[in-house]
Amino acid sequence: MLRLYDSRLSGNAWKVRILLTQLAIPFERVTLNLAKGAAAEPTFRAKSRFARVPVLELEDGRTIVESAAIMLYLAQGSPYLPDDPYLRAEVMSWLFFEQADLLRALALPRFYRMRGIADQMSGRIADFQEGAYSALGKLSDWLATHNWLVDNRYTIADIGMFGYVSLAPEGGYDMQRFPSIDAWLVRVKAQPGWVPLVEEISA
Amino acid sequence: MLRLYDSRLSGNAWKVRILLTQLAIPFERVTLNLAKGAAAEPTFRAKSRFARVPVLELEDGRTIVESAAIMLYLAQGSPYLPDDPYLRAEVMSWLFFEQADLLRALALPRFYRMRGIADQMSGRIADFQEGAYSALGKLSDWLATHNWLVDNRYTIADIGMFGYVSLAPEGGYDMQRFPSIDAWLVRVKAQPGWVPLVEEISA
Repeated sequence: MLRLYDSRLSGNAWKVRILLTQLAIPFERVTLNLAKGAAAEPTFRAKSRFARVPVLELEDGRTIVESAAIMLYLAQGSPYLPDDPYLRAEVMSWLFFEQADLLRALALPRFYRMRGIADQMSGRIADFQEGAYSALGKLSDWLATHNWLVDNRYTIADIGMFGYVSLAPEGGYDMQRFPSIDAWLVRVKAQPGWVPLVEEISA
Repeated sequence: MLRLYDSRLSGNAWKVRILLTQLAIPFERVTLNLAKGAAAEPTFRAKSRFARVPVLELEDGRTIVESAAIMLYLAQGSPYLPDDPYLRAEVMSWLFFEQADLLRALALPRFYRMRGIADQMSGRIADFQEGAYSALGKLSDWLATHNWLVDNRYTIADIGMFGYVSLAPEGGYDMQRFPSIDAWLVRVKAQPGWVPLVEEISA
């Protein structure tokens, strides 16, 4: 069985869990406690050369790192990744844009707030916001005239973009500026098999 | 013929030029003057939804954006991109790591220095350096025991990593800390078909 190393609140690992669930691929989840330094332990470093989650461990023990690389590997041949080379390039371009322009700028302010250090990091947060609001504007422009990022259908480009964009308010971002993004987040959450970041405990 | 929109000093566009040359694919180069606002013009925005170079324009007029997406498109079926799904995932993971952890941190301090505003940006540069030296350390660890990033051979993972890592000193990075990276840069530059960022005018 596939094994996914994640953490409870990682948005990047969440993307992989959404895809695995939507592909109906069974997997074992190993949730690390990053606050206790689990990512730095040698046994984990041997699985993850970048010392972070998510990591997908295959049945033969080989591992794949980086959320977008894992999604591209898992989605091959499925409806979530087009076979057509041009459309696949479009998927890639959105995935790279998200990782280059949005990931850190959305994730780190959220992390600073969770740690209670947002005030002392206010200068850095302002720098992140400057770049991220510009990138969010480009996403918003696209979604003003498209339901989905690629080929008018739900693909891993949407999952890759969804993770941290949906968590942006937790980093202090004012997403009310972007109604087209908000409408798209609702569409993504309505996809069959979508799972929340943290499962509610059922009554 | 393929058309590549680039700028004279873009490290991301340089990667695509290296690959096109190594694949012996003829292309027309359209070099934009970004300082004069060429990336914001509506005719260019119609080709590049992220308003930046590089952009690859296909013969039918469709365009592909983001350097790594362009390289993955061009390298299919060539020796520069493995067919094996696991090895291809390894290539992807290095490409995403470079875009997420190194691109902005290496490119923007270089840009500030070229613009003569490094002093007033010193706080931001310090923030970039904190993250980038950590990422460079991970790259250095890998290269201490591997000649290449994936499958013991030169692939687009190496080209994608090479661009801005080779330009890091222009952003003020002390690369003498990383002899294994330096040796790998020499190997990349020795690959047949490698081209410099700016062609020397021959005497």
